[in-house]
Amino acid sequence: MNFTEVKRVLIGAPFPTSREIHERLDRVRALAVFASDPISSNAYATEAIMSVLIVLGSGALRLTLPLALGVASLVLLVVFSYIQTILHYPDGGGAYTVAKDNLGRYASLLAAAALLTDYVLTVSVSVSAGVRAVTSAVPEAYDYRVFIALGAIGFITWMNLRGVRESGTIFALPTYAFAGGVLLVIAIGLVRHFELLGASPLPEAHEIVEAERHLVGVAYVWLLLRAFAGGCTALTGIEAISNGVQAFKPPESKNAAATMVAMAVIAMSLFVGISFLSTSMHLVPAEGGESILSQMTRRITDGGVLYYWVQVFTALILFLAANTGFQDFPRLSSFLARDRFLPRWLQNRGDRLVYSSGILVLAGISSLIVVVFSADEIAMLPLYALGVMLSFTLSQAGMSRLMGKVGTLKPGESRDTGVTHIHYEPHWRWKRLLNVVGAITTGIVFVILTATKFVDGAWLVALAIPLLVLLFHRIHRHYELVAAALSTERFYEENLTEIADVVIVPISDIHRGTLRALQYAKRISKNVRAVCIASRPGKHERVEQRWARFPRLTEGIDLRIIDYDYRDILTPLVEYIEYVNTVEFKDCLTTIVIPEFIAQDGPARLLHNQTASFLRRRLRSQEDIVIIEVPYHIPPPD
Amino acid sequence: MNFTEVKRVLIGAPFPTSREIHERLDRVRALAVFASDPISSNAYATEAIMSVLIVLGSGALRLTLPLALGVASLVLLVVFSYIQTILHYPDGGGAYTVAKDNLGRYASLLAAAALLTDYVLTVSVSVSAGVRAVTSAVPEAYDYRVFIALGAIGFITWMNLRGVRESGTIFALPTYAFAGGVLLVIAIGLVRHFELLGASPLPEAHEIVEAERHLVGVAYVWLLLRAFAGGCTALTGIEAISNGVQAFKPPESKNAAATMVAMAVIAMSLFVGISFLSTSMHLVPAEGGESILSQMTRRITDGGVLYYWVQVFTALILFLAANTGFQDFPRLSSFLARDRFLPRWLQNRGDRLVYSSGILVLAGISSLIVVVFSADEIAMLPLYALGVMLSFTLSQAGMSRLMGKVGTLKPGESRDTGVTHIHYEPHWRWKRLLNVVGAITTGIVFVILTATKFVDGAWLVALAIPLLVLLFHRIHRHYELVAAALSTERFYEENLTEIADVVIVPISDIHRGTLRALQYAKRISKNVRAVCIASRPGKHERVEQRWARFPRLTEGIDLRIIDYDYRDILTPLVEYIEYVNTVEFKDCLTTIVIPEFIAQDGPARLLHNQTASFLRRRLRSQEDIVIIEVPYHIPPPD
Repeated sequence: MNFTEVKRVLIGAPFPTSREIHERLDRVRALAVFASDPISSNAYATEAIMSVLIVLGSGALRLTLPLALGVASLVLLVVFSYIQTILHYPDGGGAYTVAKDNLGRYASLLAAAALLTDYVLTVSVSVSAGVRAVTSAVPEAYDYRVFIALGAIGFITWMNLRGVRESGTIFALPTYAFAGGVLLVIAIGLVRHFELLGASPLPEAHEIVEAERHLVGVAYVWLLLRAFAGGCTALTGIEAISNGVQAFKPPESKNAAATMVAMAVIAMSLFVGISFLSTSMHLVPAEGGESILSQMTRRITDGGVLYYWVQVFTALILFLAANTGFQDFPRLSSFLARDRFLPRWLQNRGDRLVYSSGILVLAGISSLIVVVFSADEIAMLPLYALGVMLSFTLSQAGMSRLMGKVGTLKPGESRDTGVTHIHYEPHWRWKRLLNVVGAITTGIVFVILTATKFVDGAWLVALAIPLLVLLFHRIHRHYELVAAALSTERFYEENLTEIADVVIVPISDIHRGTLRALQYAKRISKNVRAVCIASRPGKHERVEQRWARFPRLTEGIDLRIIDYDYRDILTPLVEYIEYVNTVEFKDCLTTIVIPEFIAQDGPARLLHNQTASFLRRRLRSQEDIVIIEVPYHIPPPD
Repeated sequence: MNFTEVKRVLIGAPFPTSREIHERLDRVRALAVFASDPISSNAYATEAIMSVLIVLGSGALRLTLPLALGVASLVLLVVFSYIQTILHYPDGGGAYTVAKDNLGRYASLLAAAALLTDYVLTVSVSVSAGVRAVTSAVPEAYDYRVFIALGAIGFITWMNLRGVRESGTIFALPTYAFAGGVLLVIAIGLVRHFELLGASPLPEAHEIVEAERHLVGVAYVWLLLRAFAGGCTALTGIEAISNGVQAFKPPESKNAAATMVAMAVIAMSLFVGISFLSTSMHLVPAEGGESILSQMTRRITDGGVLYYWVQVFTALILFLAANTGFQDFPRLSSFLARDRFLPRWLQNRGDRLVYSSGILVLAGISSLIVVVFSADEIAMLPLYALGVMLSFTLSQAGMSRLMGKVGTLKPGESRDTGVTHIHYEPHWRWKRLLNVVGAITTGIVFVILTATKFVDGAWLVALAIPLLVLLFHRIHRHYELVAAALSTERFYEENLTEIADVVIVPISDIHRGTLRALQYAKRISKNVRAVCIASRPGKHERVEQRWARFPRLTEGIDLRIIDYDYRDILTPLVEYIEYVNTVEFKDCLTTIVIPEFIAQDGPARLLHNQTASFLRRRLRSQEDIVIIEVPYHIPPPD
């Protein structure tokens, strides 16, 4: 089975380009694909707030709900901003496109770098969190956690390579099962909490934790801000849809916006519900112990079937949050590649119409991070969520600018056509204000996250993002250089380099292979020179004798045998060619005909001096040399 | 600093081929280079006999000396045989050449496989034994034993790459220091033993070991044979000179034979001396404890300076025994390569006129073995010395046949010219008899070694040797096939494949690079076809428009744009070329001109689709396609 056949089996038959529209996602699948990350955040977001507040004692946990409501309001602001983005930029691109269009190149590259970093971390963190859920249940698996994590990345990669639609279908089940299960738990919890329908009241926890510290003034505010910032992990991934508008069935913008609303409603219901119930039950976060979600579910369901349902699908959705990264990283990379800030091949769609190269690059980098951090997501968390906050800030700043623009939009600028006929958007002042508030809030969260986690690892991200921007810049410069060099703008046919009327044929001996090369050389030029380096005694005479045996073919060819007292025959050969190319025929294309015999089977190559390919590699680096390879195939045995 | 400069610093300036004769070895250096293995055997050969006999109790150790004398007689027989070999085959090649000439191809390949296996093991075993000597003295180094062993192999490799003469000079000191030191110890020991010159008598050991078993009949004889076979480790390496006759200064044969005699005298003096003194002092081998050589030296020198001298140089010469492998493996490989049983590049001499490739191959394989066995030479010993015994047997069998030949030698057969004028060698009957006796004895030792150590690892060698012979055979067949395919024997100029008057230029777009390629194609043919695969919407029209901008250049060129609904553009391109090559112009050479732009700096390559090089690789596997690469160099930045 060769490579192509293996690929067929793994990935499936290739899709024609014209089928692209059939590979688009409906809203149900799209929600599963894009919302797995924000929905999965509910497995830990409430706990992230509580674990900061607990420093002030279990009494302070009553602040959880107000803070959670604050986070939910922020989510509303951000979602509101992104819905406008989706309507204005139906081609997708999210923060990157918005920033490019309204804040300039560097802001857009900053947003892109921040997002790409975060997508990679999304994959590493969520897969590792999934592995932790597995190893909590099966402690024997702990020693194999890195392998399990790599296996999970491998599986998600494979599914994504098989196509967006197919992965959307497969990954829908766990997403809906998790969201449905937790919503059901919350519903039961609310019924029991308010003792409706004669339900038994909820059991309350009675654990009381003493305050570690008593904080006042600025320190107290700082702690609240940190708790708020912790809750903001619930925001990760909500921007995903804005990058992938083109993955939706038409009408793309409308479907995307609707899916975004559905996602926000589901995710925030879960978040607020969990926060309300866990504080009203006086649950206390236990470091390294049972999670708040598990505590809550166990008490509400009294440890019944529903409890295990939620546990199983929590583990699965943690793994699946990685899929959101797999959706957006390749797509964002392709936008950057299109604008020549990343290698152009990231634009290429593979057999199944997905950005296969981007998927593989993401799988590679996130696997590396998993290995470096030994699949320990606690160690990775300080790096996480910074990037997404930065991109929110830039995106909303960009949108606020767009809202203030006066009639600068032209038709055909690929924006919502309704916008082009008016000078201002309807309600632009309000929209602008909300975007400004949102930008400032997420900006503050970004600063808090960076400041509090800087020494724990956030410095890595703070370093990586500008380095990525630098990389984008350098890649762009390279492409500009190449484009200028290849450009035909100020090119006239007279500018073509002349072709020198000389052909050099390096030969090591006279055999069928070299004779064929000489024949070819004679065909294309009257001035053929066969060059042979004689580095062994007797070689000079031997070649001359054999040369004389083919008078008709060798007639008119200038045979030059160079005696050489060292074994490295490439050096004199290259020197001679260089001389002809740069002195004898300056500023002309010089042609070299390289005879090469090719053995059919791979390992047989080891049996031959690779002189021809070494020579080819040496000559390629020289200007104005045309290399003609005249192969002679050795028939396979029998 | 580039690769060439690094090489200059490490290896030194290249030597011209004509200097070869100056790189030859005089007898003093040659003894150091070739004899380090047999001389180093004395560090353990006596002990190898005693550790078998001790099963019968310390009383049985008195049999050590007779057995040692038996081994020494066998050495004399073998050396006698090899001196004849050297005189008959002054070009070197030892057992391989003798067997080839007198026993046929398969016997010669068997001898070569056996020797190559053994040379690899010589390196691994002796370096590991050296490391054991070091870690006995410095136990802290034990954890780093594999690194020390690899470092030692690296150092010996480096020295050998710098040239035979240079390594001979450097390695002479430890060889002579060890031999001189032990000889001095033996001399003092003899003086004290016979209480000459009023010397104090030797202290005797009084340890008495009870017999583990009481053996009679066949079992007793088998034990004696095993003890004898153990002592035969003293024979390893004595054949080395016969392979390397051409490494000697002229007169090569005479110098080689003299060096062989000197080697045999020194090695056997040490062996018999150590065996005599250690049995007369009633020393007892201690498993895992102090070696017999160390016990003997300590008692004779009363632990003085000479004791430490011998200890230090024992460790050094154990490392250096590896050098004998480095001398003979590359040389024997080059003989096999010359006869086309191994890759031809093993014949090539490097900058310093040594067989660099063979040296590196040996270093690689022996390092691998050291790593696999964790530098534990005890574990490797069952694999060792088998090969060399097999080669002795074959070599002596071959020589005995040669001695019986009647006047079959012709002048110019590269043998001692004195032989060509007579029908029989002088004393041929005696010489033949001695060779027969030697062959039978070493054959018996080979069988004993294989039988007793088979399950401990000798099976590996018993498997490796025939597999190597099979490999030689297959390599030979491949070269024969290639030679037949390239041969001009039954080749006439009319047989040359015709060249089709068509040139195909695959283009992805119209830019300076492709224009240059089209210009070149027009120059060499009237029938040029530019082929472009349009796999994206709009591409077809865009290429047509740009094509029209260069009417003069594109005039007469047939532009074929193939619309394709998949992204893999190589497939339709290769299919088209295949069609032209195998249907339109059957049995002709078809020419493909590939435009390729080349960015100066390495990492920039990652930024471009490597379509050109993928296409080249796909086309290379097809018959009768000539590939012309027309490069366009992108100037470096600034």
